[in-house]
Amino acid sequence: MGETKALRFLAERFKVARKEVLIGIGDDSAVLELRNKACLVASTDTLVQGVHFDLENQTPSQLGKKAVCVSVSDIGAMGAVPKFLLCSIGCRSAEAVQFIEGVSMGVREGCQEFEVSLVGGNLSESQTIFINMTALGEVSADRMVRRSGASEGDGIYVSGTLGDSAIGLRILSSVPEISGYRDLISRHINPTPRLSLGRMIAERGVASSMIDISDGLFCDLGKLTTEHGLGAEVNLGELPLSSGFVSLSREFSEDPYRLAVSGGEDYELLFTSGKNRAAIEQVSRLCGVAVSKIGSVTGERRIRFFGEGGEEVFYDTEGFEHFC
Amino acid sequence: MGETKALRFLAERFKVARKEVLIGIGDDSAVLELRNKACLVASTDTLVQGVHFDLENQTPSQLGKKAVCVSVSDIGAMGAVPKFLLCSIGCRSAEAVQFIEGVSMGVREGCQEFEVSLVGGNLSESQTIFINMTALGEVSADRMVRRSGASEGDGIYVSGTLGDSAIGLRILSSVPEISGYRDLISRHINPTPRLSLGRMIAERGVASSMIDISDGLFCDLGKLTTEHGLGAEVNLGELPLSSGFVSLSREFSEDPYRLAVSGGEDYELLFTSGKNRAAIEQVSRLCGVAVSKIGSVTGERRIRFFGEGGEEVFYDTEGFEHFC
Repeated sequence: MGETKALRFLAERFKVARKEVLIGIGDDSAVLELRNKACLVASTDTLVQGVHFDLENQTPSQLGKKAVCVSVSDIGAMGAVPKFLLCSIGCRSAEAVQFIEGVSMGVREGCQEFEVSLVGGNLSESQTIFINMTALGEVSADRMVRRSGASEGDGIYVSGTLGDSAIGLRILSSVPEISGYRDLISRHINPTPRLSLGRMIAERGVASSMIDISDGLFCDLGKLTTEHGLGAEVNLGELPLSSGFVSLSREFSEDPYRLAVSGGEDYELLFTSGKNRAAIEQVSRLCGVAVSKIGSVTGERRIRFFGEGGEEVFYDTEGFEHFC
Repeated sequence: MGETKALRFLAERFKVARKEVLIGIGDDSAVLELRNKACLVASTDTLVQGVHFDLENQTPSQLGKKAVCVSVSDIGAMGAVPKFLLCSIGCRSAEAVQFIEGVSMGVREGCQEFEVSLVGGNLSESQTIFINMTALGEVSADRMVRRSGASEGDGIYVSGTLGDSAIGLRILSSVPEISGYRDLISRHINPTPRLSLGRMIAERGVASSMIDISDGLFCDLGKLTTEHGLGAEVNLGELPLSSGFVSLSREFSEDPYRLAVSGGEDYELLFTSGKNRAAIEQVSRLCGVAVSKIGSVTGERRIRFFGEGGEEVFYDTEGFEHFC
């Protein structure tokens, strides 16, 4: 299947009926309409075989879905609404038909779930398989939430639970048949971007800064604090951890806190806020997503961790930074 | 250099002063403003090592520049104005610093030349080097020129000259030190997207359909004609060929017409028009880009070629279609 034929196949599959898609797949470019006065939000991300995924553990369809999740998550972390996707796939020509067929199934599932439209793409031969996804969305200029914006004294909040994806990956990579932990594996393979939460946080102006956790709490908290001359104090006892995560960490002889602080790909929202806790609890309740306060922003440019007894806990953060 | 550090380096280098870039590199997503009532135009393209380029022939900087050219060319072929770029790079970590440094130099040069801003990006480890570029632009809904839209009887026009890039690549790949053909090599390495021509064609409404030639005249003419139930007659004697191209084709024992019809990556504009020739000549004159009439659109769903004496010439087009 040449690129033109494959794109024709995809164009059929991703025919878009939405009126804001004036031209979808099949022309030189897609042509799209934004809401009046909305700003365009754009983000791009790549999943590479052997680095971000292993086809022994994940089907092409799961990969396609995950590529959608990861890319809309970046749009959601601005408080914006994802609308359109462009997807570039690189794979060996021998396996192209089957791989593209599988990826496109997952992408379609993701598009339906997150109400986005695939409007363009590109297929290339490549010895290393990769999926690049560009997500486009919209936001009002006065609503968006940047990574910068935190102030000393702000609370630090995180949605959902931390570390599940990291330990899910550990299960996938080391023990193929552990039963009873499907949820953790699923958190790695099929993460949930917190779109409605991000949007409401932005609409209500409750966050001073926000990011989605892809590189791990330590790394991504640094992008909200130390990168802007601030610091953070995190209370480990307040980290939201699932019971499956805690018991399995122990089975792997891992400190659950250490894993929760360093593990990536949770795609939970991490944000800072100077508002009172009631405002944040209301947003959490309305979206049906748990939000936990895990610490506060400090004026001293470093991230410190405190144990359940209040004692400071020191991690070898150079190991964490490897992933930043 | 981790991704965060590399992106910080790039953020410094690509700091954007334009007021329509509300947030550039360094946040979860870029946030951008479009002109009032403009539609968003989006396109994505990938260059893969061993498929689209060979680092033995091209420097990382030349590659970066070419990635910009190729991607803005797709925007220009809609008659739209390219504004923003997002660039994803995959390379081995051992060579990452040098490669990214080189690519970013070329991308910066391209951004300056074509007046676009790099607003986002992504760096991944990958055994196969690739550069994915997403270009975003704007156009009025009533101005854009699609691939569909040609009618029987329309003239077929092409800008510049054909085949130079294909033979430039041949020189690069086979004879490292042919002198006197730098122009042809340069057409391959540093193609010229016809942005001002595309824009004026759209503004004056002279084209019924338009595409930029990336896969070769035969393939891309098919996207304007046979894909929409139409056909074409092309007069080989009217194909615009550079003198260097003609003499070198003969040196390579190649039929120049065959090479001009099949060779890709010219990035010239191919369009159909029902307007009179004077209107098209005026656009050509105003933009300072030669435009040649090479044939006409027919109602019979196939592309036919005719020689200088009017005789039909038959090519093994299956060989050409391989690249479609």
